[in-house]
Amino acid sequence: MVAVAILAAGKGTRMKSTLPKVLHQLGGRSLVERVLDSCQGLQPERQLVIVGYQGEAVKTQLAHRPAVEFVDQTQQLGTGHAIQQLLTHLAGYQGDLLVLNGDAPLLRAETLEKLLLTHQSHQNEATLLTANLPNPKGYGRVFCNGDNHVTQIVEDRDCNDAQRQNHRINAGIYCFNWPKLAAALPQLRANNDQQEYYLTDVVHFLNPVMAVDVADASEINGINDRKQLAAAYEILQDRIKDDWMAAGVTLIHPDSITIDDTVQLSPDVVIEPHTHLRGQTMIGSGCRIGPHSLIENSQLGERVTAMFSVITDAQIGSETRIGPYAHLRGDVTVGESCRIGNFVEVKKTTIGAQTNVAHLTYLGDAHLGDRVNVGAGTITANYDGVKKHQTVIGSGTKTGANSVFVAPVVLGESVTVAAGSVVTNDVPNYALVIARQRQRIIEDWQKA
Amino acid sequence: MVAVAILAAGKGTRMKSTLPKVLHQLGGRSLVERVLDSCQGLQPERQLVIVGYQGEAVKTQLAHRPAVEFVDQTQQLGTGHAIQQLLTHLAGYQGDLLVLNGDAPLLRAETLEKLLLTHQSHQNEATLLTANLPNPKGYGRVFCNGDNHVTQIVEDRDCNDAQRQNHRINAGIYCFNWPKLAAALPQLRANNDQQEYYLTDVVHFLNPVMAVDVADASEINGINDRKQLAAAYEILQDRIKDDWMAAGVTLIHPDSITIDDTVQLSPDVVIEPHTHLRGQTMIGSGCRIGPHSLIENSQLGERVTAMFSVITDAQIGSETRIGPYAHLRGDVTVGESCRIGNFVEVKKTTIGAQTNVAHLTYLGDAHLGDRVNVGAGTITANYDGVKKHQTVIGSGTKTGANSVFVAPVVLGESVTVAAGSVVTNDVPNYALVIARQRQRIIEDWQKA
Amino acid sequence: MVAVAILAAGKGTRMKSTLPKVLHQLGGRSLVERVLDSCQGLQPERQLVIVGYQGEAVKTQLAHRPAVEFVDQTQQLGTGHAIQQLLTHLAGYQGDLLVLNGDAPLLRAETLEKLLLTHQSHQNEATLLTANLPNPKGYGRVFCNGDNHVTQIVEDRDCNDAQRQNHRINAGIYCFNWPKLAAALPQLRANNDQQEYYLTDVVHFLNPVMAVDVADASEINGINDRKQLAAAYEILQDRIKDDWMAAGVTLIHPDSITIDDTVQLSPDVVIEPHTHLRGQTMIGSGCRIGPHSLIENSQLGERVTAMFSVITDAQIGSETRIGPYAHLRGDVTVGESCRIGNFVEVKKTTIGAQTNVAHLTYLGDAHLGDRVNVGAGTITANYDGVKKHQTVIGSGTKTGANSVFVAPVVLGESVTVAAGSVVTNDVPNYALVIARQRQRIIEDWQKA
Repeated sequence: MVAVAILAAGKGTRMKSTLPKVLHQLGGRSLVERVLDSCQGLQPERQLVIVGYQGEAVKTQLAHRPAVEFVDQTQQLGTGHAIQQLLTHLAGYQGDLLVLNGDAPLLRAETLEKLLLTHQSHQNEATLLTANLPNPKGYGRVFCNGDNHVTQIVEDRDCNDAQRQNHRINAGIYCFNWPKLAAALPQLRANNDQQEYYLTDVVHFLNPVMAVDVADASEINGINDRKQLAAAYEILQDRIKDDWMAAGVTLIHPDSITIDDTVQLSPDVVIEPHTHLRGQTMIGSGCRIGPHSLIENSQLGERVTAMFSVITDAQIGSETRIGPYAHLRGDVTVGESCRIGNFVEVKKTTIGAQTNVAHLTYLGDAHLGDRVNVGAGTITANYDGVKKHQTVIGSGTKTGANSVFVAPVVLGESVTVAAGSVVTNDVPNYALVIARQRQRIIEDWQKA
Repeated sequence: MVAVAILAAGKGTRMKSTLPKVLHQLGGRSLVERVLDSCQGLQPERQLVIVGYQGEAVKTQLAHRPAVEFVDQTQQLGTGHAIQQLLTHLAGYQGDLLVLNGDAPLLRAETLEKLLLTHQSHQNEATLLTANLPNPKGYGRVFCNGDNHVTQIVEDRDCNDAQRQNHRINAGIYCFNWPKLAAALPQLRANNDQQEYYLTDVVHFLNPVMAVDVADASEINGINDRKQLAAAYEILQDRIKDDWMAAGVTLIHPDSITIDDTVQLSPDVVIEPHTHLRGQTMIGSGCRIGPHSLIENSQLGERVTAMFSVITDAQIGSETRIGPYAHLRGDVTVGESCRIGNFVEVKKTTIGAQTNVAHLTYLGDAHLGDRVNVGAGTITANYDGVKKHQTVIGSGTKTGANSVFVAPVVLGESVTVAAGSVVTNDVPNYALVIARQRQRIIEDWQKA
Repeated sequence: MVAVAILAAGKGTRMKSTLPKVLHQLGGRSLVERVLDSCQGLQPERQLVIVGYQGEAVKTQLAHRPAVEFVDQTQQLGTGHAIQQLLTHLAGYQGDLLVLNGDAPLLRAETLEKLLLTHQSHQNEATLLTANLPNPKGYGRVFCNGDNHVTQIVEDRDCNDAQRQNHRINAGIYCFNWPKLAAALPQLRANNDQQEYYLTDVVHFLNPVMAVDVADASEINGINDRKQLAAAYEILQDRIKDDWMAAGVTLIHPDSITIDDTVQLSPDVVIEPHTHLRGQTMIGSGCRIGPHSLIENSQLGERVTAMFSVITDAQIGSETRIGPYAHLRGDVTVGESCRIGNFVEVKKTTIGAQTNVAHLTYLGDAHLGDRVNVGAGTITANYDGVKKHQTVIGSGTKTGANSVFVAPVVLGESVTVAAGSVVTNDVPNYALVIARQRQRIIEDWQKA
């Protein structure tokens, strides 16, 4: 039985932002959401987010998570003071408490599981997460006996030369036996330079206290400024990209590629340089994506190619080829073996199989059948200035260059649309529709 | 006289792929093709590729190289076993045999030349390629006397502490006197944990055996997974980019640029960030390419600029400016001092000198003369639903905005095409062609 | 009182260029211009650029800086010889002389200020800039007593083993008391292998001579080849990006972003990957720029978004959304809360507030009011083959798909333009304008 408390009350002055630090985005989610997500595997009984600076903004951004309780810390008097605010909220609670930092979003779920397991299997009153840093300067050093029981924690500024050689540092992530912690919290004093209540000090009142080393020291990185935010992004990206390469995905020039951790890829997908995969995207086996593409919240079948294109909220059938310079957005479905070519925008449209939309076209609020050939410069005039209307184009129909469909309008199957026609009325199957002037020639317009 | 054998029978389990490992692409060529290419400078008398896992796929991919002979290794029982398969193929052959790994594509031709030269000038029975690695863990260590004669090869797991300090490792690349090797091969035994026949063991039966150090240890890297594939690509790219910078090419932000080793650049070319040069591309002096461009199998004259564009299979005359957002593809020739602007696609088309195609245009299967001005929204309707037809536009002609040419159609020289016209019949020189309605006004359509 | 002399006479053979080395571009300015700019904070009384190889090209490129005087060094006989050429130009000058290298553009203004301050406050006859390099090989070593008075300078090749351990090197940047230097210059001798006159040797004739360490050793890097040019660019970029991150700008994947040092950003700007900000660009708070965009010489208000777009010489109002695949260029003004969508080119045009130009449009030499809706495929035919004309579109007007405006033409307010119309004459307020044929249907064109 574990409750989770997340420290999220700080301003983050060095972010130089109107946003509180924990609401900054990192790979599609805010810092505090990432911390919340990292502990869901523990199935926490309570999820307490301690808010202070711009607390209302934090509450609003997390409003879609009903399991989260908010705890106000109106003054920010240190980590110990923050946890003291829980005393009323957790009155009578008998389980453990995991304390996380809202600005440390890189902790792996496995690390938290290991911390909790050690804590519970040893019936510790407190268990600290520690890390071995090559350069531990500035961090409190944790001293243990042989079986990882903590004997001493010394702040960097208080270390003697010998102590300073200890590279094992306190990560500021704790697991506590809540009733024992609750008894100790009132004893904290703010007798230090910053006049703050430090949660670390509570360890003196508890026993046994153990330390658990994090396997990968980068997991404990906190984010205090934009440079650290950028560095955290690179760490996350390296993890994600290493995992996909291990799973059989080819990344060409991986440093130039970004992949959200919500994306699902298949073996033998090839990602070309300068490509970004975001949101709830799934890409089937044999697809070749990029270079220079952005795919967001889209599902691609197998052996799709997409280069120099932007695709959001779309479903693409297998074998379809997209780009360069295509833009699919907003509730688009494309069938198998289609071709969506250059300077083509498709919005809120369904396209059947083996249909070609090769050039300079806008399809909005349209429904196209199979084997349609959309001529260059074809436009669905879907907006009458007030609202949007639908265009339906039947299977096997061929639209001429620079034709316009003034919606609502229905073209049947195997219709032929003459180039340059503006079609305003429905057209039956197999018909030719034409709306243009015959050409006239005026000779010697330019004198020879 | 040298024959080359390439080990290409393995599956490459860690690639997690339906493709055999040696068929994975690295900078435009498969691994095994790169290995084959690296030894062409030796003018090998025989080129033997030993195939096993998906051998037919390997044979198919190399079918365009008639000099390659395939040797089947139906079971994969180790490198020694692989080379044993050559005994019948090379019966009676009296020359040397160079053994390469199909998954080690980074060897430079110079390295192989040096290996062979040492082998032949010393009349060695075997010569090993060795490397000095900062971290030799996992590799067999090679011990030599002062003049590079090999005294011992010890596998990593069999090394004592002193031996483990030797950083000179066996790269698995060998040159053999074939008759001597042929006599030794039947003596190999598989008395090891893996029950495999190791080619390394054959060295015990041969004398003299020498070692040749590779100058650049990265050359011996094998590729076993997608991360190593990505790392090999970076190594190749660094080599190529360093060479071009040394030759007088400016790369702005070189980490973001990729250049195939088949590309030819000239001094004072400037490549902007996020640009990819591929295939049989040649770029003349003073060109500025990028940012965000892909040039493939194209030849550019001097002082061409191309930004945010995709150009494949095109020839571009000097001083021509392309982009942003232009797409030239498939048998395109553009003359000197032209302008191909934004949202313009050009396919299978010839364009004369000083012609402007500035915006929102599709030219397919067309022939344009000199000094043509193509208005925005001009489209060649080249496809009648069955086949493609040609559009010819004479020199000095000016096409109006949103005009369509329904091919086949020929416009003469100095023709004027009125905006919005669909041209279906040929137009003589100097004429005006117009095909549109006069404008009508209906007042107070929107009530004031 | 200080004069500045910049050594800019060399060819730079390793650049392999038709341009002299100091004219190569680095982040939008030539090397020699960067050096000139770095010392403007000292308010130099004289700015002397010593030219030789392609001196006329250097003079032409700096012609816009009237304060610069050129000194010809017709033969290149060393740094001492170069400074000897100043003797006539600075005859009678009584102040200090700062000597800079035209190929060392990374010096910070603060470093030069510190050098000059030390020089002047100690009334030195010479003050050298020095650096501590991890690998000082090839550089002359500077030996000082405890208070930074130079006791000896020893060239690398003349160093004994003990001297070689000194990592403090001569950066080749000097401050001199000019009258003292002028007296010493004629005593230089070229008795060395290269038969050159070295400026370093003049130090022997001067006293006191002090050394000032540069804080960041990368500042003294000279540029001798294209690889060093690329490395210098990365150093500059890292400085610029670190500064903006410290100032509250989020850079997502900063390695993929480039920002000229002339750009001004605001807090809470987010720059997405593969984005380039150049020239006199200013971006307001809350903007989100990129991915894959180029913004040059443009001013953006607050909360503007621009993705996959190229924007040059434009002013963009707050809340406006741009892209993907938009191209704004050349004297463009866009109002607040507009939408400039995909495959849209805007040139020399003013657009009011809340106007939408969503797809496949060319606006050139146009003036649009507020709340205009520009239909897909709308084109301003601004060019009659001889000159450009203007199109005016009043507020509240709605243009149909594939409409063309043949300029000069004026549309009033709240006009409705029918799809496919070519508008050649002015249209009054509230009117409908239509110029197209009614549609005809020919049944059974395709047989069933």
